[in-house]
Formats: sequence, C-alpha cells, structure tokens
Amino acid sequence: MKENLYIIKIGGNIIDDEEKLASFLESFASLHVKKILIHGGGKVATSLAKDLNIPQQQIDGRRITDEATLKVVTMVYAGLINKKIVSQLQSMQCNAIGLCGADGNILLAHKRPVTAAGVDYGYVGDVNAVASDAVQSLLKGFDTLVFAPITHDGEGQLLNTNADTIAKEIAIGMSTLYDTTLIYCFEKNGVLMDKDNNNSVIPVINGVSYQELLSTKNKNGEPVIAEGMLPKLSNAFATIEAGVGSVVIGHALQLEKIIKGESGTKMRL
Amino acid sequence: MKENLYIIKIGGNIIDDEEKLASFLESFASLHVKKILIHGGGKVATSLAKDLNIPQQQIDGRRITDEATLKVVTMVYAGLINKKIVSQLQSMQCNAIGLCGADGNILLAHKRPVTAAGVDYGYVGDVNAVASDAVQSLLKGFDTLVFAPITHDGEGQLLNTNADTIAKEIAIGMSTLYDTTLIYCFEKNGVLMDKDNNNSVIPVINGVSYQELLSTKNKNGEPVIAEGMLPKLSNAFATIEAGVGSVVIGHALQLEKIIKGESGTKMRL
Repeated sequence: MKENLYIIKIGGNIIDDEEKLASFLESFASLHVKKILIHGGGKVATSLAKDLNIPQQQIDGRRITDEATLKVVTMVYAGLINKKIVSQLQSMQCNAIGLCGADGNILLAHKRPVTAAGVDYGYVGDVNAVASDAVQSLLKGFDTLVFAPITHDGEGQLLNTNADTIAKEIAIGMSTLYDTTLIYCFEKNGVLMDKDNNNSVIPVINGVSYQELLSTKNKNGEPVIAEGMLPKLSNAFATIEAGVGSVVIGHALQLEKIIKGESGTKMRL
Repeated sequence: MKENLYIIKIGGNIIDDEEKLASFLESFASLHVKKILIHGGGKVATSLAKDLNIPQQQIDGRRITDEATLKVVTMVYAGLINKKIVSQLQSMQCNAIGLCGADGNILLAHKRPVTAAGVDYGYVGDVNAVASDAVQSLLKGFDTLVFAPITHDGEGQLLNTNADTIAKEIAIGMSTLYDTTLIYCFEKNGVLMDKDNNNSVIPVINGVSYQELLSTKNKNGEPVIAEGMLPKLSNAFATIEAGVGSVVIGHALQLEKIIKGESGTKMRL
C-alpha cells in the first residue's frame, strides 16, 4: 500500500490575513503525514510593484509578467512569503523545507508562447514535468515541503506560474509514488449552489453533474459556477482524470474537517 | 574514511557582477563533489531599500536590520539572489537546492542582544546550532545546497545573519560527518602582504604567523591585515581550531586552483 501524501494549495486571501494564515498553518502543522503546501502570492507583490513604480499590466484579468515584475514575484513569493510560512511552521514544530520549482529541478517549465491573438504573457511558465524522484527524496527526510509558485526553464530563466496549476501538476506527478489527495483551500466552504450562502455547498461533483452545473443558472439568472471558479474546477477535474485518488475544494480554515470528509466539495470521475 | 564536503562562501562583489558570477558558478558547478554554497547579498538589498525609501542605518559599518530592512533582505537574499543562483546552476546541469536557515530548521539562531554600549542591531541573528542531520539528509539526495544568509529563532522570527559566520558554522557543524573544506572566496588572490599587489599572497598562515601579522605594518605604515580582512581571518581561525580539516581564503575566479592547493591562503593551526 502506498503512503498518503496531501497536496494543499492556499490562495492569496489567506496569505494576506495574518490571523487566518496562522490559524490555517496551525491545522496544517498538526497533520502528522507527508504533505506539500503550495502558496499563492496575495496582494503583497502588487503592493510592492506599486511602491517600486512598476506598472502592472493585466489582460483578461491575468497578470503580464515583464522582467521587473518577475523580480518582484520572485522576491515576494520565493523569499518573503515562502520563508515566513516556513519559519511559522518551524515555530509549530513542523520541520518544513521551503522551495521553488527551480530547486532540485522539481518544476521544469517553458515560457508560454505568444497566443494566436498576439497576447504575450511575458515570463510566465507552463509546467513540462515534475521531478517526482526529487520530491520523494526530500519527503524521505522531511514530512513537509512548501512551494512558491515560481518555476524555471532549465536554461537559467525563472518563470511565474499559477499556483493552482502547480498544485495539480505536483498531485498528478506524485500519484504514482503516493496515495495522493489534492485539496484546494479558499475562502468559501466549497463549490456553492448559491454563492451568497456558505451553507449551500455541493458535496460531490462528478463528470455528469459538472457538465450540468456549467449550464445551470441561479435564481438571479447568473451561472452557478462563477468565472473565478472555472479554472479551479477545470484543474480539479484534470487531476481526477489523471488518476489522483481524491480532490477536494474547501475552506482554508476547515482543513481537518475536509480531510475527514466532513467538509468541502469532493470531485468524482 | 569520510566523504569530502566543500563549503564555499562568495561575497557581494561576485554577486553584483553578472559575468563574474556566471564564471564562478561554471567552476562551482563543475565540481562533482558534495558542496554547499553560501552567498552574501551584494548591493541589491541596499538599492532596493533605497528605491522603497527605507532608510539604512549603519553603526561601525554594520547594517542595522529594522523590520522593513529584514523584509528587504529576506526578499533579496532568500528570493531573488538564491533562486537566480539555483536556476543558473540548473542550466549548468548542477542539481542544486536553495535554502535559508529556517528551512529544515538548519540554522537556529537567536536575536543578538543589545550591546553593553546600547547598540541594538535589530533583527540580526547569531547562530546557536546547525542541524547537521538535516543537511546530511539533503546531501544524500542532492550534491549541491545553496544557502541565503537568513536564519530563524525557532519562534517564527526570521533573522539577518552574516554569511561568513554561517559558512563557518556550517563547516564546523558538518565536520563530524564529512571531511570538510571551507573556502572563503572574494575578489583578491588571498591574504596579501601588500594589499595593492595581487601577487603578494601569503600562502600559509598559522597561529603564530597570524599573531605576528596582526601587528605587522606595510611600507606605508598601515596594518598588513586591513580592517575588512579581520573578521574573515578570525572566522577562518575559529573554524580550523574547531577541527575543520582545511580552510582557504582565495579568489572567487580561481576555485579549481584553490581546491588543487595551487592558489589562495591556507590556514594552519
């Protein structure tokens, strides 16, 4: 039987709130299992870019990573946030190692090509491969790894990469070696039927109900699956389809309940 | 017989010069042995602090690390510089892992107390202990570790720590497990009899000649061992006295020669 491995992704809303982050990290630290945390960036990078007068360009809500912005996200994600999380985990007797995708060649990526519509996202990386042997080697010595969403192209170039995607890729990459669970943590209790009602969690979504949900409207005539939720669900399904045993979307402050199967939205094939 | 381990420290002058850094990293990457690189910060942190209007205070030439400055050095040392070095090493087929002292609880430190003279260095850490078992565990999976000069106090506080001192502490800490060599790399060929003549390298310094050198003046009546060199020599001697087999001070671009014993100043008891 394979050993359990939890891949847990937390988003910017938790990173930006010191109390919530500490509370999440307490639950995370108390999981005495092999686990990998992937953190997003939060508002710190945007605020640092502003302080440095580096204009932030967005196309369709996605950040363009020019050279100056890449420096900012490398500093904030792989430096400030990653090491702050690791030092907090250490204070909770959780012996974590903080990494980015260049470390151990763990997340090899390529610079996203200019799109057909001519959009150049800049130094943004799409993951080619996860060095699962390197991750396994680290997990032999340390129960806990913490990843910043920075990858590299193997030719000396760091790249900014979506943290949800990294979580998916690591979960898929590790699933041949471990009994892997992927948990996307965010600020709601799961995928909601009514976005204003945190008690309207859809407990299970499978391939069929997913397709139905995509075309379901709420009482106000809006799609139940809001735009921001689409990439998360799409990543979640791609992970399940690639053979990862368990994928859950739930609230960052209900980690223990999610793991017990008492909270969040579970994905099924 | 114990396995060889090289602990190599590079200073700010190399970090600040892209060509020199690349050239140093090429030699470093070509060493097919277990090795640990400790890098300083260079001018990037000072320049970022200036861009962010964070006033930099110095007392007796030493930086005071207030809260804002700690954020800057964490971002620059553990983020920007550490990950840039790791990605460059990866492009040279050197599978490195980049870390700070909080990772794996490797460098536990304490905040330096206010001095008798009332000087408060702020968030500056003095190392208590090196987790040599954690370092050994990492070296089993990866030949190369790269450390940023940031430590932690075990209670969630990151601390700014002198890179020369970290190199010394790691060399001493690892010497029970490995046949350890410490190399301090800088921009001169070694400890010089005449600071203006790079060919006046003193090949060997032992305890007796060290004491003599401390009181020797050059032809201009200045001390041969200039002020900036004193802490490096003092760290080098402390390392030798603690039982580390070999300590050398030499030029960052002569790494191969230093290792062959053909360049630099060797320390002897």
